[in-house]
Amino acid sequence: MSDFAAATAVTRAEGGAVAAVLDPGWDVGGGVLNGGYLLAVAARAAVLDSPHPHPVAMSASYLRATGPGPVTLDVVPGPSGRTLAHAAVTLRGPDGPSLAVQATTATLTDDAPLWAARPPAIAPVEDCLGSDGTVAGRPTKEVGLRHRVETRLDPATAGWLRGHPSGEPVMRAWIRLADGTAPDPFALLLFADVLPPTSWAIGLYGWAPTVQLQVLVRALPAPGWCLVEARASEVAGGWLDEDYRIWDATGRLVAQSRQLARVPR
Amino acid sequence: MSDFAAATAVTRAEGGAVAAVLDPGWDVGGGVLNGGYLLAVAARAAVLDSPHPHPVAMSASYLRATGPGPVTLDVVPGPSGRTLAHAAVTLRGPDGPSLAVQATTATLTDDAPLWAARPPAIAPVEDCLGSDGTVAGRPTKEVGLRHRVETRLDPATAGWLRGHPSGEPVMRAWIRLADGTAPDPFALLLFADVLPPTSWAIGLYGWAPTVQLQVLVRALPAPGWCLVEARASEVAGGWLDEDYRIWDATGRLVAQSRQLARVPR
Repeated sequence: MSDFAAATAVTRAEGGAVAAVLDPGWDVGGGVLNGGYLLAVAARAAVLDSPHPHPVAMSASYLRATGPGPVTLDVVPGPSGRTLAHAAVTLRGPDGPSLAVQATTATLTDDAPLWAARPPAIAPVEDCLGSDGTVAGRPTKEVGLRHRVETRLDPATAGWLRGHPSGEPVMRAWIRLADGTAPDPFALLLFADVLPPTSWAIGLYGWAPTVQLQVLVRALPAPGWCLVEARASEVAGGWLDEDYRIWDATGRLVAQSRQLARVPR
Repeated sequence: MSDFAAATAVTRAEGGAVAAVLDPGWDVGGGVLNGGYLLAVAARAAVLDSPHPHPVAMSASYLRATGPGPVTLDVVPGPSGRTLAHAAVTLRGPDGPSLAVQATTATLTDDAPLWAARPPAIAPVEDCLGSDGTVAGRPTKEVGLRHRVETRLDPATAGWLRGHPSGEPVMRAWIRLADGTAPDPFALLLFADVLPPTSWAIGLYGWAPTVQLQVLVRALPAPGWCLVEARASEVAGGWLDEDYRIWDATGRLVAQSRQLARVPR
C-alpha cells in the first residue's frame, strides 16, 4: 500500500460508523492538516458503501482546522443509481465536526473527450524549481506536505519564490506523490489544494485558510507527473478564490477545483 | 417586494423549521425548477439565523428534480464568527430531500479589489440577441425562467441559437431580472445557472441536469445588467462542467460558479 493510501485509509468501526487515524505527516504547518488530504479521506468514506468506486464531485466546508489523530466519518447516503450516487460525509474530531462534504461518486473512465481544454505551456520538469524550504529568502514554517508531494514550479510563475512576485495571481507546477505511486482520483483531490496560496504570486505571503472547496474529478489519470495550474480571479475584502485545473501526463484534463479562502487584508 | 424576492421567500414555520412555497414560474421545462432559483431559496434559509446577511459560498448537490409547491428547509448551523458562518441546508419536498447545500454566509462589501479579472469583450446589450423560443429553427419547450430573467446573448457566441454551433463551448450574455429590480447576492445565485447548457454551443442540444453546483459571491453587485461568461473545460464520458464568471455593470467580478452536469453521450 502506498504512503498516501495508508495515510488516507478508512475502516468500518463498531456500530457501522467509519473511522480513520489522520496522519501528522500531511500538515501545512502548525499541526494543521492539508485540506486536500482531508478531502481524500472523506472520499474514501464516501465510496465505501457506494455502488461506484470514484469521487467525481466533492464540495467541502472547512468548519475548523483539523489536526492529526483519530476521527470518525458519518456517511449519510443519498439517492443512488446506475450513473452516480450522492452522500453527505461529516468528519468529526475531538472538537466536533471539522469538515462537511457533499460527495458525488461515479465510475470514471478514460474515454476520449468530445471537447477538452488543452494544457498551458510549462517548462519541462527538469527546468522547474523544487522547494528548499525558503520563500523570498526567509525560511518557511516546517510543512510535512512538502515531503509527501513533489512539486516543481514553472520558473515563469515562480518569481514570488525568490521575492519577486508578478502582477498576476497564477502558478503552474508539476506534481506527483513523493512515494512514487501513480495518481488516482483520490490523489487528484489532494493535488487540488497542494500549492501555496495563489496570492503569494502577487506578494501577499500570508496564510490563506480554505473556507469552501469544490473538486471535480473528470477522468482516470495516467501514470506520471500531473500539470497543475492555479489561478485567482479576485482578491478583495479579505477573500481569495483559487481555481485549479489539473492535466495528467498525457495532457488530458483530469480534475478542476475552486476554493474560497481568507487572506490577510 | 420584487417578483424574485417573493418567489424565493422563506418563512419560519411552527417548531422552528423553515418553509417555502416554490413558485412554478421559475421552471426550466416540464415542471422542473431551475437550480439557481432553488439555491437562492436555500440561501434565504441560510441567512435567517446567521449573524451575516449574504451567501458567499454555496455548494449544492442536486439529489433529484424539484417541482413547485410547499417545501421545508432544515438548517443546521455550524461554526459562526465575526468573519463568516457555516450552515448545512436541506430542501425537502414531498418526495424527500432534493437539494443538500453547504452554505457559508458573510458580510459582503463593495471594497475595491487588490486584484480582479477584467470582463471579456462583448457586444453592447442592444446588439445582443434575445430568445424567441426557438433554437436551431425548432421551438424549444416552454421555459418559465425565460420570462423571469432577461437574457441577451452575444452574437459572437450565439451561433448555436440559429443552428450553427461553434467549436468552443462558451457563451457570453447580458442578464437581468425581468421585474426590473437591481441584482443582489441572491440574484447572483440565480444568474450562476441561468444560461442554456454550455454544450449547446458545440451542438449538443440535449438537456443537461445539474449534479453539483458551487457558487461564490464576491461582492455586492451594482444596479444594471450583469455580464455572464459560461465556459466548459471538458465534455467527456457523459459529463460536462460549466464555469460561470459574472461581472456587474461597473465591470466588477461579483460571482463565480462551477457545476458538474450530465450530458447525453
